[in-house]
Amino acid sequence: MSNAKLDSKVVQNLKDIAQKLRIHSITSTQAAKSGHPTSCASLAEIMAVLFFQQMRLNMKHPRDPSSDRLVLSKGHAAPILYAAWAEAGLFPVEELRNLRKVDSDLEGHPTPRLSFIDVSTGSLGQGISVAAGMAYVGKYLDKADYRTYVIVGDGEATEGAVWESLHFAGHYCLDNLCVIFDMNKIFCSDIGTEMEVYRERLDAFGFNALVLNGHDIDELVKAFFNAASTKGKPTALLAKTIKGKDFVGIEGIDEMHAQPLGKRAEIAIKNLQMKIANPNVRLSPKKVGKCGHAPEVHINNIMLCSPPNYRLGDSVAPRFAYGTALAKIAADNPRVIALDGDTKNSTYADKMRNAFPERFIECFTAQQNLVGVAVGASCRRRTVAFVSTYATFFTRAFDQIRMGAISHTNVNFAGSHCGCSIGEDGPSQMGLEDIAMFRSIPGSTVFYPTDAVSTERAVELAANTKGVCFIRTTYPNTTVIYNNDEIFSVGVGKVVRQKPSDEVLLIGAGVTLYECLAAAERLEEDCITARVIDPFTVKPLDVQLIVKHGKLCHGRVVVAEDHYQQGGLGEAVLSALADYRNFVVKHLYVTTVPRSGPPAVLLDMFGVSSRNIYKACVAIMKK
Amino acid sequence: MSNAKLDSKVVQNLKDIAQKLRIHSITSTQAAKSGHPTSCASLAEIMAVLFFQQMRLNMKHPRDPSSDRLVLSKGHAAPILYAAWAEAGLFPVEELRNLRKVDSDLEGHPTPRLSFIDVSTGSLGQGISVAAGMAYVGKYLDKADYRTYVIVGDGEATEGAVWESLHFAGHYCLDNLCVIFDMNKIFCSDIGTEMEVYRERLDAFGFNALVLNGHDIDELVKAFFNAASTKGKPTALLAKTIKGKDFVGIEGIDEMHAQPLGKRAEIAIKNLQMKIANPNVRLSPKKVGKCGHAPEVHINNIMLCSPPNYRLGDSVAPRFAYGTALAKIAADNPRVIALDGDTKNSTYADKMRNAFPERFIECFTAQQNLVGVAVGASCRRRTVAFVSTYATFFTRAFDQIRMGAISHTNVNFAGSHCGCSIGEDGPSQMGLEDIAMFRSIPGSTVFYPTDAVSTERAVELAANTKGVCFIRTTYPNTTVIYNNDEIFSVGVGKVVRQKPSDEVLLIGAGVTLYECLAAAERLEEDCITARVIDPFTVKPLDVQLIVKHGKLCHGRVVVAEDHYQQGGLGEAVLSALADYRNFVVKHLYVTTVPRSGPPAVLLDMFGVSSRNIYKACVAIMKK
Repeated sequence: MSNAKLDSKVVQNLKDIAQKLRIHSITSTQAAKSGHPTSCASLAEIMAVLFFQQMRLNMKHPRDPSSDRLVLSKGHAAPILYAAWAEAGLFPVEELRNLRKVDSDLEGHPTPRLSFIDVSTGSLGQGISVAAGMAYVGKYLDKADYRTYVIVGDGEATEGAVWESLHFAGHYCLDNLCVIFDMNKIFCSDIGTEMEVYRERLDAFGFNALVLNGHDIDELVKAFFNAASTKGKPTALLAKTIKGKDFVGIEGIDEMHAQPLGKRAEIAIKNLQMKIANPNVRLSPKKVGKCGHAPEVHINNIMLCSPPNYRLGDSVAPRFAYGTALAKIAADNPRVIALDGDTKNSTYADKMRNAFPERFIECFTAQQNLVGVAVGASCRRRTVAFVSTYATFFTRAFDQIRMGAISHTNVNFAGSHCGCSIGEDGPSQMGLEDIAMFRSIPGSTVFYPTDAVSTERAVELAANTKGVCFIRTTYPNTTVIYNNDEIFSVGVGKVVRQKPSDEVLLIGAGVTLYECLAAAERLEEDCITARVIDPFTVKPLDVQLIVKHGKLCHGRVVVAEDHYQQGGLGEAVLSALADYRNFVVKHLYVTTVPRSGPPAVLLDMFGVSSRNIYKACVAIMKK
Repeated sequence: MSNAKLDSKVVQNLKDIAQKLRIHSITSTQAAKSGHPTSCASLAEIMAVLFFQQMRLNMKHPRDPSSDRLVLSKGHAAPILYAAWAEAGLFPVEELRNLRKVDSDLEGHPTPRLSFIDVSTGSLGQGISVAAGMAYVGKYLDKADYRTYVIVGDGEATEGAVWESLHFAGHYCLDNLCVIFDMNKIFCSDIGTEMEVYRERLDAFGFNALVLNGHDIDELVKAFFNAASTKGKPTALLAKTIKGKDFVGIEGIDEMHAQPLGKRAEIAIKNLQMKIANPNVRLSPKKVGKCGHAPEVHINNIMLCSPPNYRLGDSVAPRFAYGTALAKIAADNPRVIALDGDTKNSTYADKMRNAFPERFIECFTAQQNLVGVAVGASCRRRTVAFVSTYATFFTRAFDQIRMGAISHTNVNFAGSHCGCSIGEDGPSQMGLEDIAMFRSIPGSTVFYPTDAVSTERAVELAANTKGVCFIRTTYPNTTVIYNNDEIFSVGVGKVVRQKPSDEVLLIGAGVTLYECLAAAERLEEDCITARVIDPFTVKPLDVQLIVKHGKLCHGRVVVAEDHYQQGGLGEAVLSALADYRNFVVKHLYVTTVPRSGPPAVLLDMFGVSSRNIYKACVAIMKK
């Protein structure tokens, strides 16, 4: 843009469009009988300028990788976002009346079921992370001209995730990112002070922070121009706005939050119509420019650049093999990226950083933003992202992961330091609920590889598997039990020990697989033979294999896991067997909060050692 | 304190103590062969001044409610905290050599197994929230003189939870709170700039922010004096420190992070010993003063001030009954408090605010801090805390809840807006993994009351139940099915429909209990009679009741829940039946990410309506 000042006709057109967007926000929420029209109203001029003056969009292909991005972090303002796309011509405005209906994709909060939505929003304070991930890729990987906008409500600005992402954006100088704060909540005498507090905070977080009237078209245009011209730092527009702006009798009344206008709708609409100079106004968004395009990328069929290279009996930590595999798939495909939260030496993501530093994103100790950035970075299929930290620290970002699933993300997560087998660091560092968490994510795949070979294959498979993938990478060294050419697939387990005489089936993964094998040895001394299964993936679980071998073992199943009772491998096995009579399952799990101590002592003390498994098998033989 | 300047002998004594703390940090981590001695070394002078110059402590009763509090947010520096308590005389310094041993409570990170620890730390960035909860209670409820200190590492300052809690502390003017930032990470030329950035940020968040040399006893004493004298805002000390300070050859070397000194220990200790002027120095902490004491409180046997008051057949939302019950127990006991994250109109925590505004803490949209403040507020048994927000937004604070359990917290959580029965707002607002999350918390109790009567009793029981309690409060109105005098207990379910001829057992809770009852009606038309159980608590589950009635119903069990498959009521039932052969269970759950739509339509579309249950029963009759 060469000039930040518009002529008065253009300004009037944008004003008219803004009022039309307000009207659509009322009519759609009236039809739905629910929604947040007043939270939309504060955004009308911002949306009008963004869509019809600022953003470069491809109306034929809203997910054009070269077009600008917009994330509506305050997802409850969805009606005005839908209205803007309709006014821009993507679909008929009449469809807006299907808002929140079960057969419409115009849901209460945006989801990528819609062609023009990259990520679901509605859980507050997550949008900036996602937008920062997009902007990071735009600036450093795509090296393209597209810009990323994100609209944030002031109510959500108290979320810590917001400050994590602001810090990230400032640190990485994301000058292609523009964060718009819709300051519609503070409608009181001290607005000036409040705005100044926010300006100072954003300034201290490395932003070019501008205060402006969010209902003034000229000020908005100038501010966006300023944002686009500011190099080396991201811009934040602190837009003073009014909730319910221009809704007669409703403007600024907080009690109308989250309420459709009901009986007051008709007069409000009439009043808005009167403000429109040209009822037939139609504008089009700017087209995507011819230069500064995002490169074409291919992210299918990602492979380890060389097969696993271990000897049977080698002692290797699966988390170490994770790092090895990550660097190997990154060598195979230039769009594989890794993100870590200040734990790269422990998760071994540093192997990726050492091999391909330009594709490693250090996200500091800030797991919510870590996950959000990965979700953003992998939008529009720009990258294949692997995120690592201690397994238990993903609990910090459960909400981001949950929203990632609603956003159809394909991000892969690797959690090291799982279970009490980490030993002396104690329970605060032990992942003991991570499987439960990742299993509960819709459409997720949960890998729990036991040795280095299977870990490398888990990484390779995750890179090509849709949806959220989680790889639980064991902390201590484990013995390599698979040949380098062993084939692994999602949902296919391995029988690692069997005899025709087997009377009980043992299931373990990671450290407990070895405990199962040791228990089987000991049982054999008592003339009891046991079959052992390594499930490889906990979700989907190889139900057929378990049912088949469970039946062959007289319906006796013992499951041992370095995880709490709830939601882990044991309950996954129980779910798999629910439909069959005549099974009996003994589930061994970490019984309570562990403590500091040597791994082997803890495994035994908290109930998942070979001794515990042996005892359970002896007991189950009576059933 | 009348004078901020110490005489030189006192200063030398404190310097000597600091060096002794350094030596203990080396010897204990040497004995453990793991730990973070260099992260301890940066804190030595801060600890010396805090323990022997600043804090008022009761060495006979470290959890004296009137004594000062100290939270070590950077929990990996535990060895120097243990050393300080040992030097203060709480236990022999020889015990420090048992660090991280399985039979010692001196764990890798602090836990309240130790008499002098209020909360577990080790998951970074959580300490300020907890300390802010303590300080809030001190200032506004106890109105006592004790002060709260929290030590934060600069590495964890990127956590969003830190900024949530700083905002909270600033907003509520917690001038009895002092946050000490141990800035030991930035050991480079631009330390001045970095410190200034932090000072500006803290200033913008409402703090009295002071930059000082964290190794200078005089500066520390002055800063603490400044903190104690500053009214109306909390103080942050930005202490410039050096990792591994005074460890010869190791000082400031980042590679030594998280490493014991090994072969370098001996020379480092010798060097430190040479710095000590008086090897026999012994100091004692200040005693707790005679005035400004915290009041005695009683938080046992909390009761509803009046019994539930509904008529059978009334239509009442359980979340509404939650608010009613909360105000009722608050009327019974003045130490019941409620906290909410900007959702009080929806969770009905506003009933508590309206009745007892001084015991309602608005924590804004910042769930991590919301939970942390509650954990802090209920420490030392000062309050009984109830925390409410949308069920799914507790995923935002999973890590804080997890750490709460390791901290032996008794905080109660109430999650509204569970399941697809909330309807049009769509999946981002639906709690569909909340039971899985809270079940995975060690020692937790999970209430899932179905009607208003049982909800009120759940609140009353939760107030008196140890450990983390979660109450899932249903969004829509449900029919009152229990009499007002019905007795409820933790772990005791109710058979709500039965006949001797029953051939299948249905288990549901909340909305799905009614779907089960409707399915049973329809089945009766087909001459199949079904028994129905309301479990009341999902954890502990009434195993005896389910096994007994399941057997009476020919081992056929159908479970329906408005929750995803993993970790919820269904898998709890499967765990309960694991030990028994000859059961067959059909589990109905929300099959995938739902969408916006009318609740009844969604229940059916996603698989948990009476129609789905009926079909499952017909199918299971063949088994």
